[in-house]
Amino acid sequence: MMQDSSPGTRAEFARLDEQDPLRGHRERFALPEGVIYLDGNSLGALPRGVSARLTQAIEREWGVGLIRSWNDAGWYPAPQRVGGRIASLIGARPDEVIVADSTSINLFKVLVAALRLRPGRRRILGERGNFPTDVYVASGVAELMDAEFVAVEPDDVLAAIDEQTAVVSLTHVNYKTGRRYDMAEVTRRAQAKGALVVWDLCHTAGAMPCGLNDAHVDFAVGCSYKYLNGGPGAPAFVFVAQKHHGQVRQPITGWHGHARPFDFVHDYEPGQGLDHMLVGTAPQLGLIVLEEALKAFDGVDMNQVRHKSERLTGLFIELVDRTLGDFGFGLATPRDAAQRGSQVSLTHPEGYAIMQALIARGVIGDFRAPDILRFGFTPLYVSYLDVWDAVAALRDIMSSGAWQAPEYRQRKAVT
Amino acid sequence: MMQDSSPGTRAEFARLDEQDPLRGHRERFALPEGVIYLDGNSLGALPRGVSARLTQAIEREWGVGLIRSWNDAGWYPAPQRVGGRIASLIGARPDEVIVADSTSINLFKVLVAALRLRPGRRRILGERGNFPTDVYVASGVAELMDAEFVAVEPDDVLAAIDEQTAVVSLTHVNYKTGRRYDMAEVTRRAQAKGALVVWDLCHTAGAMPCGLNDAHVDFAVGCSYKYLNGGPGAPAFVFVAQKHHGQVRQPITGWHGHARPFDFVHDYEPGQGLDHMLVGTAPQLGLIVLEEALKAFDGVDMNQVRHKSERLTGLFIELVDRTLGDFGFGLATPRDAAQRGSQVSLTHPEGYAIMQALIARGVIGDFRAPDILRFGFTPLYVSYLDVWDAVAALRDIMSSGAWQAPEYRQRKAVT
Repeated sequence: MMQDSSPGTRAEFARLDEQDPLRGHRERFALPEGVIYLDGNSLGALPRGVSARLTQAIEREWGVGLIRSWNDAGWYPAPQRVGGRIASLIGARPDEVIVADSTSINLFKVLVAALRLRPGRRRILGERGNFPTDVYVASGVAELMDAEFVAVEPDDVLAAIDEQTAVVSLTHVNYKTGRRYDMAEVTRRAQAKGALVVWDLCHTAGAMPCGLNDAHVDFAVGCSYKYLNGGPGAPAFVFVAQKHHGQVRQPITGWHGHARPFDFVHDYEPGQGLDHMLVGTAPQLGLIVLEEALKAFDGVDMNQVRHKSERLTGLFIELVDRTLGDFGFGLATPRDAAQRGSQVSLTHPEGYAIMQALIARGVIGDFRAPDILRFGFTPLYVSYLDVWDAVAALRDIMSSGAWQAPEYRQRKAVT
Repeated sequence: MMQDSSPGTRAEFARLDEQDPLRGHRERFALPEGVIYLDGNSLGALPRGVSARLTQAIEREWGVGLIRSWNDAGWYPAPQRVGGRIASLIGARPDEVIVADSTSINLFKVLVAALRLRPGRRRILGERGNFPTDVYVASGVAELMDAEFVAVEPDDVLAAIDEQTAVVSLTHVNYKTGRRYDMAEVTRRAQAKGALVVWDLCHTAGAMPCGLNDAHVDFAVGCSYKYLNGGPGAPAFVFVAQKHHGQVRQPITGWHGHARPFDFVHDYEPGQGLDHMLVGTAPQLGLIVLEEALKAFDGVDMNQVRHKSERLTGLFIELVDRTLGDFGFGLATPRDAAQRGSQVSLTHPEGYAIMQALIARGVIGDFRAPDILRFGFTPLYVSYLDVWDAVAALRDIMSSGAWQAPEYRQRKAVT
């Protein structure tokens, strides 16, 4: 049974929407009819202004302005400018975040840089269940730098940090379980042992407040196509704490990272601050989309976002408990809201087929092998009614056996 | 004096346009009125279909399809598919080219991979006047890999290749002078000494035929925003000869380079062929723009493109010789068409101001420090009349002294 304070009917969920201070923000997104979109933790929805802005950029800035737009349309400083906007969402100073490349490439840069800052130490410490790219990139860096990558279980991370550890590289919110680390605590313990920290904020940025500087974080990376709604394959960001500026040296020394790229001199001289994190020519169309998309956060209080996120995820768990008890689902996400991000992950041995059936019903989450059904709750555009209706659809699919249709077992390239 | 066979009047240049088999292709681009665009070697012009295609991709594929478009809209295989299209323009097999990241990052990957393929050798040989990012990246790789980067003058490259050389890394057509290497000859000489070659095709792809496999090239990289017209900061490409597939190991081991990214397994296993050159999530919007832009090459004979390119650049040089002799210009580009790319570079001590004045007149080239005025001739949309009118405008600016106006001396961020 749900507690008295919890809404128990669809009408009560509708009332929560009426009282939601963020409810108007859904209008900032172009969501399709008949879809409940619970996969914003994989690809954020389309902010309304993006299409018109990009048409203008293509037709006026590229088509008419041509090469002149590098100066005249603000293209050149876009990595810093858009980075500054992201900085405001993750508790960093504007000059500590820059938009560049992909999360994986930025992670590569900062891991090499971290090992260079700790020449006497050769260990990268990570989590075994971290997102694969974090694991793969750390392994690749270890091989390249004659270091080692050690991956432990989440509960063993703190104890594993020692004086051999050069850098602790973790994802704040786990992609599979939604479990969230205590960023400040891990950072404190790492730094007490003389290690540096890198936080992957892919499932954090835009989903909750994130006080990078309050937690004295050294490095962070993250993508912009999930909760920041920057579009498929949008450029990523990298954070370097100001205290490290001037000392960090990343290995992919491209011309846009040079102090004076348009002097075309022979010797590399790293750009100031974190400008040297840039490598090649910045993906301008991607930056333009991202900058426009970030307007969805204008005037948004990230504490309200977090409050709604906790409520959405908590109610989803409650409804699953209450109405899906007979169908063999497990819960992979912590029940304690303080320990989770903005997603809920259920487990089920037939998870793939169930998720395909759910998607066919218009409730879009995703599947992560071997048995995880992921549901992301993006507070700017997911409503309380969406929570109710999603669970109702899932219940329907299970009780009717609709998920057993053969077409739902055919694996697609991208899950 | 010009030779009898050369056109000597504006009417004769107009006649060349009438006879040009590529003249109709100009209609494939949205060029602004009143502009002669001679900077397609820096940022290619906008192909007409791009804007509508991108609007559809944004509104339908992202906005409505959302995460489903990774499967349903062909997003996932786009790096390979678009790479295959580029392959056809540079003399490679479809499975030897993939679109990923930036030129600089791809160069980083292949240089590390090349050093790994030649463990007994520690030298990267390059050209002193190469584009800065090629020099900077090679220097960065050398530092990282305990190797050395040796940069020599173009005429000394062949003699400098020896048994210590792991890889020769050159740009086919020099960004500043337009001078072109004999790709087959350099490749042959390098391989005869047991070295590998990497060719940077930034000023080659889309500008001329390029027989990578005919020349037995090992690796190549290049951008898609110059002669391929992929838009500002478009994703780059990387070529790996089939003979090296299965042996090449690049260091930025991201999840999209994994053999089975959506299995989310712990250990990295490189993707087949050159799929492992992928790192993070591919920049889909950039890929969509590029794929549409490449349609401008549908049905185009690259030999015709080269023929016209030689004629445009040759006539530009002739007109400069004939009409600008008194104004102190030098020619940095080889007079022998076989030794140059698709650009002409003039030198002048006041080059910056002169170019600004020219741009203000609607003739757009660019400037490269310290004294180079660059003019790129993209045969798909530059006409013979453009050549005549551009030189006439330059003559006007010089004879009137218009370039001496103070506003033309103010340096912009991007030259």
